[in-house]
Amino acid sequence: MKPNSKGKAFSGREELPENATYIEGRNAVLEAFRSEKTIDRIYVQDGLQDGPILTIKREAKKQDAMIKYVDKERLDQMSQTGKHQGVIAVAAAYRYAELDELFAKAEQKGEPPFFILLDEIEDPHNLGAIIRTANLAGAHGVIIPKNRAVGLTATVARTSAGALNYTPVAKVTNIAQTIEELKQRGMWFVCADMGGERMYDLNLTGSIGLVIGNEGSGVSRLVKEKCDMIASIPMKGDIDSLNASVAAGILSYEIVRQRLGAK
Amino acid sequence: MKPNSKGKAFSGREELPENATYIEGRNAVLEAFRSEKTIDRIYVQDGLQDGPILTIKREAKKQDAMIKYVDKERLDQMSQTGKHQGVIAVAAAYRYAELDELFAKAEQKGEPPFFILLDEIEDPHNLGAIIRTANLAGAHGVIIPKNRAVGLTATVARTSAGALNYTPVAKVTNIAQTIEELKQRGMWFVCADMGGERMYDLNLTGSIGLVIGNEGSGVSRLVKEKCDMIASIPMKGDIDSLNASVAAGILSYEIVRQRLGAK
Repeated sequence: MKPNSKGKAFSGREELPENATYIEGRNAVLEAFRSEKTIDRIYVQDGLQDGPILTIKREAKKQDAMIKYVDKERLDQMSQTGKHQGVIAVAAAYRYAELDELFAKAEQKGEPPFFILLDEIEDPHNLGAIIRTANLAGAHGVIIPKNRAVGLTATVARTSAGALNYTPVAKVTNIAQTIEELKQRGMWFVCADMGGERMYDLNLTGSIGLVIGNEGSGVSRLVKEKCDMIASIPMKGDIDSLNASVAAGILSYEIVRQRLGAK
Repeated sequence: MKPNSKGKAFSGREELPENATYIEGRNAVLEAFRSEKTIDRIYVQDGLQDGPILTIKREAKKQDAMIKYVDKERLDQMSQTGKHQGVIAVAAAYRYAELDELFAKAEQKGEPPFFILLDEIEDPHNLGAIIRTANLAGAHGVIIPKNRAVGLTATVARTSAGALNYTPVAKVTNIAQTIEELKQRGMWFVCADMGGERMYDLNLTGSIGLVIGNEGSGVSRLVKEKCDMIASIPMKGDIDSLNASVAAGILSYEIVRQRLGAK
């Protein structure tokens, strides 16, 4: 059951990494879960309920991998070995970090933590550009949610221009809950949204989490309610909103400016 | 000779707009040049030197359309009517503005001109995001070069999120020369590059042109020499440079901040 590196059988919509590893067959998938591999998602054949499949699904849930149910024909198409036995796993090409690694990075630099939290960014180019910005703006890490968001795909890696090798990215179950936990560790949260205070007028120094919302719908209500401040970028034009990665760049650099004490 | 709207015969590399109009045949192409249509480029069959073809090439040069020489087989492939007569023109989906329209926009708002000049931006997503940012940062227009740069394609329009309907985009033969001309009209130019002054420490108020360089190679030497100031974004990370549209956003908003007098 040789892992392969082609994703042609998958649709573009699912944004599978070109260099992801696909693992086919029950034992190989279980083995992958037991090893250090980060499984991004598993494809399970509709209707299968036997012991090994249930064990795989339990592992997937425990390790935060997505579970997708597809018909046998689809798995046959995806399979490169012809021996998928009803399950194919996709291993992420990059490792997700633990939240503690982000704090360690800040501590190591002797700086108050500065994290960028992404509330359901869907476009891999945006995620890549934001990781790139995070690196250059001196953020100590990026936090993304498990669901309804793009993960660390090959496109993300390429768009990050190498930043993914330096800036840790943590994947959490729930952004709102993570904000709550990080507040216990002394962090403040500012979310980017219209109708907030002008970003220049807020104090964005100190231990801060910058929250950027989804490309179309912005920061979700539950997440916004957890934030201490709402920062707005002045809008002088005719249209509604900036590109998510551009907005993240402008706000990150407002934090940089305030940290530098520049005026 | 019905214009058509499909570009499947073209390679992706050339970034042709999905909704561009293709005009086939000598009379139709000449007619298009004489009408209000903006012809982005023409494809001419190798070796043709007769009167009408020479007239078309002269018009193309006069109107700044690119001329590409291809073999007959390629034109046959591209042709939807089967009657290309050795020439196919591609009409841009969007109109380019004159420089005077950018000045008019500034005057109408009672503001000192603020233009964004792009020195060979190649990625349509970057151009679209920059036009979007230009609109929201209150820039009065964007200036792009004729050659070695992406034009107003359908991808650019989509990525601009509607901004292309409001923010004029002018296409010029030579950015360095345009800077020289605009200096005569009282403008100052700042280019984004490493090794310049920290952007916060420059005076970016007044009539200003912000110059953003190519994704890979930055601002070209000739253009940089024409600029009055070189602005650097503070880099605190491990990698080299920000995404071009993110850098344009950060610098545009530094101009906004200084114009607002915010600190």
